[in-house]
Amino acid sequence: MNKNNKKVNAIIILIGNEILSGRTQDANATFLSKWLNELGVRVEEVRVILDEQKVIVNCINEVRKKFKYVFTTGGIGPTHDDITSQSIAKAFNLSYSYHKEAYKILEKYYKPGKFNDGRKKMAKMPDKASLIYNPSSGAPGFIIENVYCLPGVPSILKSMVGGLENKIKGGKKILSETISVSTVESEIAKPLEDVQNNFSNVEIGSYPFFRSGKIGVSIVMRSTEKNQLKDCAKQIQNFIQQKKIQIIERE
Amino acid sequence: MNKNNKKVNAIIILIGNEILSGRTQDANATFLSKWLNELGVRVEEVRVILDEQKVIVNCINEVRKKFKYVFTTGGIGPTHDDITSQSIAKAFNLSYSYHKEAYKILEKYYKPGKFNDGRKKMAKMPDKASLIYNPSSGAPGFIIENVYCLPGVPSILKSMVGGLENKIKGGKKILSETISVSTVESEIAKPLEDVQNNFSNVEIGSYPFFRSGKIGVSIVMRSTEKNQLKDCAKQIQNFIQQKKIQIIERE
Repeated sequence: MNKNNKKVNAIIILIGNEILSGRTQDANATFLSKWLNELGVRVEEVRVILDEQKVIVNCINEVRKKFKYVFTTGGIGPTHDDITSQSIAKAFNLSYSYHKEAYKILEKYYKPGKFNDGRKKMAKMPDKASLIYNPSSGAPGFIIENVYCLPGVPSILKSMVGGLENKIKGGKKILSETISVSTVESEIAKPLEDVQNNFSNVEIGSYPFFRSGKIGVSIVMRSTEKNQLKDCAKQIQNFIQQKKIQIIERE
Repeated sequence: MNKNNKKVNAIIILIGNEILSGRTQDANATFLSKWLNELGVRVEEVRVILDEQKVIVNCINEVRKKFKYVFTTGGIGPTHDDITSQSIAKAFNLSYSYHKEAYKILEKYYKPGKFNDGRKKMAKMPDKASLIYNPSSGAPGFIIENVYCLPGVPSILKSMVGGLENKIKGGKKILSETISVSTVESEIAKPLEDVQNNFSNVEIGSYPFFRSGKIGVSIVMRSTEKNQLKDCAKQIQNFIQQKKIQIIERE
């Protein structure tokens, strides 16, 4: 259930067959979601797609109209399977060639004689791209309109987003409260629904868990409205106490 | 790059705001991808979407035409935010009511007097659904045409897929070989591309890593053709040796 539709939204596109094959567990989506949340941007979708040009082009052209911000990760490295930059160029019908500033950055980053063709490829971008600087390994990401292209290696990606914070115009920050209780979902389904019906500006989620042999439910409330969040949490706490259910944790 | 287009494909749809907010790290997509791969089904896309009816309906109606198999996880529990079943019913324009067999299973699973409304809700499904049995916690998943709906709790999901193996008709199994080497991508980009050009039926991916302070690249080859995979690996091994690059690991 979502009552925050008017908020600033985003989609994250993870480009890479290695995640789809199950070989690699993605870490970037979780990181970017939390980071964007702090900036008041709500991630409303994540997609993992193949590194095929047609797939990337179609996906980008669909989502860039639907979402305020589009973030891509992966496929901007030096090898043959890194095709994000040329695909983004194609999606926007822009030429794909050396970006002067990116070329200079990379030329300076590598020792003389070490700036080979693979590395030069990382300076190739869609025409008119503005750069996302990379303090950890030289090769920049780039921005075209509302599409932000970042690398796939999590440590490098993390080092780059700091430079983007003045470029992202978020809405109100989404606040959250979590009450984890020692019960099963079906025991609290009815009163929880009643509370949800009282708070149209709070999104209440219920997530069962099994943790170190114990079962429980995390009730997560999210809202941009601090007072409503507080009142909502109070109502939930009330029925929990009435039902004599143990609270395991509050965050 | 993908040369396996004619293979049997699938998409995994993770339904749930908790993954989008970054609160929960999904584990189901990786598990399902590996499991499907063993059955000869190639996961070509993963989406994480909001638990809003309109979003689910639109997504399902788009992807069920594009992919041979659609798997959803999450949203089939007893609480107000579990809206997958009714959304799937809406997508297929089917009525949403108690499924007789599912109702009986749940009635039997819970002790007398404990089969409350929340639990009864888990027996509500789109008309004509066939069940996916749940050996660990009673509540079944269901199938409508090519859409397979599974729960979000990983341990329960894992216990349920065994019963699906005779229902999934995969293609040739996708085999893979990995050579991890002690170098950086740009040093091998050119010869790797040359090898890729020699093998149209092998998909070669190059993935840089930083592991316990060491940098390296994993070269992953995937194909349904065993001999071509072997020959491809040999050509890669050859240029690696010529370049005197150390092999860290082979899988």
